[in-house]
Amino acid sequence: MTMTASAMKEHSLLGLKDLSASEIGSILDRAAYWESRSEKVIPVLKDRFVANMFFENSTRTRFSFEMAEKRLGAQVLNFAAAVSSVEKGESIYDTVRTLESMGIDAGVIRLKPVGVLAELASRISVPLVNAGDGNNEHPTQALLDLYTMKKHFGELKGLKVSIIGDIKHSRVARSNLWALQAMGAEVKLCAPESMQAPELGRYAPYVPMDEALCADVVMMLRVQLERHAEGLLKSPDQYRLQYGLTEERAAKLAPHVIIMHPAPVNRNVEIDDAVVEHPQSRIFTQMANGVPIRMAVMERALK
Amino acid sequence: MTMTASAMKEHSLLGLKDLSASEIGSILDRAAYWESRSEKVIPVLKDRFVANMFFENSTRTRFSFEMAEKRLGAQVLNFAAAVSSVEKGESIYDTVRTLESMGIDAGVIRLKPVGVLAELASRISVPLVNAGDGNNEHPTQALLDLYTMKKHFGELKGLKVSIIGDIKHSRVARSNLWALQAMGAEVKLCAPESMQAPELGRYAPYVPMDEALCADVVMMLRVQLERHAEGLLKSPDQYRLQYGLTEERAAKLAPHVIIMHPAPVNRNVEIDDAVVEHPQSRIFTQMANGVPIRMAVMERALK
Amino acid sequence: MTMTASAMKEHSLLGLKDLSASEIGSILDRAAYWESRSEKVIPVLKDRFVANMFFENSTRTRFSFEMAEKRLGAQVLNFAAAVSSVEKGESIYDTVRTLESMGIDAGVIRLKPVGVLAELASRISVPLVNAGDGNNEHPTQALLDLYTMKKHFGELKGLKVSIIGDIKHSRVARSNLWALQAMGAEVKLCAPESMQAPELGRYAPYVPMDEALCADVVMMLRVQLERHAEGLLKSPDQYRLQYGLTEERAAKLAPHVIIMHPAPVNRNVEIDDAVVEHPQSRIFTQMANGVPIRMAVMERALK
Repeated sequence: MTMTASAMKEHSLLGLKDLSASEIGSILDRAAYWESRSEKVIPVLKDRFVANMFFENSTRTRFSFEMAEKRLGAQVLNFAAAVSSVEKGESIYDTVRTLESMGIDAGVIRLKPVGVLAELASRISVPLVNAGDGNNEHPTQALLDLYTMKKHFGELKGLKVSIIGDIKHSRVARSNLWALQAMGAEVKLCAPESMQAPELGRYAPYVPMDEALCADVVMMLRVQLERHAEGLLKSPDQYRLQYGLTEERAAKLAPHVIIMHPAPVNRNVEIDDAVVEHPQSRIFTQMANGVPIRMAVMERALK
Repeated sequence: MTMTASAMKEHSLLGLKDLSASEIGSILDRAAYWESRSEKVIPVLKDRFVANMFFENSTRTRFSFEMAEKRLGAQVLNFAAAVSSVEKGESIYDTVRTLESMGIDAGVIRLKPVGVLAELASRISVPLVNAGDGNNEHPTQALLDLYTMKKHFGELKGLKVSIIGDIKHSRVARSNLWALQAMGAEVKLCAPESMQAPELGRYAPYVPMDEALCADVVMMLRVQLERHAEGLLKSPDQYRLQYGLTEERAAKLAPHVIIMHPAPVNRNVEIDDAVVEHPQSRIFTQMANGVPIRMAVMERALK
Repeated sequence: MTMTASAMKEHSLLGLKDLSASEIGSILDRAAYWESRSEKVIPVLKDRFVANMFFENSTRTRFSFEMAEKRLGAQVLNFAAAVSSVEKGESIYDTVRTLESMGIDAGVIRLKPVGVLAELASRISVPLVNAGDGNNEHPTQALLDLYTMKKHFGELKGLKVSIIGDIKHSRVARSNLWALQAMGAEVKLCAPESMQAPELGRYAPYVPMDEALCADVVMMLRVQLERHAEGLLKSPDQYRLQYGLTEERAAKLAPHVIIMHPAPVNRNVEIDDAVVEHPQSRIFTQMANGVPIRMAVMERALK
């Protein structure tokens, strides 16, 4: 089945930057519906073939998509391939086009190079769902984050959310920023200078750590420890002291605040060991919420 | 269920060298039948267990087999393991025998060492399908190539097919040569001297590039770029100029000629970027045709 | 569904050390039941999600579990991830907890560090099945070994079993020792001094090779050839001469003796090439028996 470009655009989910509040809202509502269903498998996608195409490794995210797809009764095929940097663009296109030729009905895709996905979607005729592309977007992660906040606070409008850590390299930060602002939340950013993305300053202010912690949601980002070698991270210990959610800082949070993190965490770097399962932490709740969110997104892609 | 050796031989597909024209013809016909079916899943292999055993990596071929198997309703288990060269023969046997002991009904197998497969099939009692063994055979690839040609030209008898590139290391070239000749097509080979397989000269002539391009089908082979280091490939650029299907050469092809390639392609080495999706190219059609061909082959293995 | 800790303990299978003879017996009986069923798929675990979590690579064991799970109709997700030694404990916990959050009903887990599994099971609320943890236990391997012996000899009580080889690093040896002694078998150990585990001497005597071969069951262990570099293994040839089951030694075994090995074998190191499929060898039978044993274990985990 080929679709028109506009139909395709409605079914694909490449990012949240251009998604309207009503589109985001209906995905969140549909996730709530799926979460409410007690049956483990509801085969609305029976006999539909979904390819999880991971050009960048991530067994956790792949697993979450696979759970969602199988709970909807889809046929799931996993494809993982490292792509060297020299051949990246065309090689990814050739592979996705190959799997499309073989008859997949939708593709979930994670890849490193930024900018490839949009072009890919324009040349491929099955819906594509972005499972993370470089430092650009990770829309299902942000949707599950919003879903987690909405479940806890009832609504997103007016919610104060601080995103703390390696903003520069974070697709999670970007997708959350676009979606939270679309839904009327108030976003603040906090990062050491070497980890700031100056272009995002137009959308949300960079604030000091103390101010960032005065929020409804404190969202910690994963530090890429390999950046230590690049000189972006002076020392994990020093990072923890300046930007980590230490036990001390967690103890001072207002009681209504929730702590979030996209995982996997670096314990005792961006978040202290004892804070991961703190009563105010929603880290494992986020992962649980990823499944109904991805059920909603995959149903939307294939309906 | 154990089979007699001759029944096994009828169900396994180790290569095309010894397959008769009528056997090849009936696989092609059955693929046409599967292609004509509009349902995505037709569970004729329900509750049959198929192991895709890849001792040499190939996510694309594995994916195509998996699509075919799942469209037939089979239970699919994937097994991938690199095998070091020292332990190759017995180690592969031990693994395949292990999976057989566990109860698989058929195995799809890709492996590097030549000669292992035939011995394996004689010692294993479930049907085996060759998904590529060293530079020996890749029968399902050649079958999908023939299917693609037959769909386009109506029949294979008398068809002029040129196979161009690294013949020496190519199982695709060999399987095509055997099957095309069985079906009455006329095959020519074209390769730089370092990439010729002299023993194939008895079956088909080596011709210069200009002559090779005067054909009904121009089948380009993938150049193993790592052979560059071995000195077999002087330079990718020079290879392209002498043996690549450049835009200039593609423009001069007669309008009825089709361009084929087993993929993945090295763009701008054996085939120019702009030629991959040229109107006369059937590269992605080949991949699409791989699924019904493999449905026919797996059904044959397990019927 | 959350369970009480004691219910959980009944469903998980972390090791055989604390399992009673009656518990072992009922797993063996249930495996016999599953082996007797002629249908390939009996969907008693329909719509239950099982994660095979391999933090240490083993495609063979994973494949056996996957066969068992799919024959019971379960939904199977595979997760493989190497875990570096520095982050091991918490990192494994975070991953398993993540997959639990996503809604798996049971987890099969293989991991390197000893001691992590027990703590994991106390913090995770779905049943866990140990597929091998360091040199501690490999309960399903030992259960399939016992099942193989029981099928051959009728009963385990009084059976003389010699376990020969790298006892020190072997979880297979330990799990067999605990289970065999629980069932009333008489175990002897045999190993070069560098491969002995002195703490096991309290449970079973170390005997010379000649004495070890006077038994009902001769169970050879896999030698880790990489230990050669560590100086634990002087030379594979010398090991074979002193502790290998050579053709000569196999020829001298009493006719009722059966030869076992957990596989994969190092041919011509711990066992000669010609002995692997010796009439008295049960090596591939063991692998076949692994499937009904794991069906019994997974059914027990999820019933």
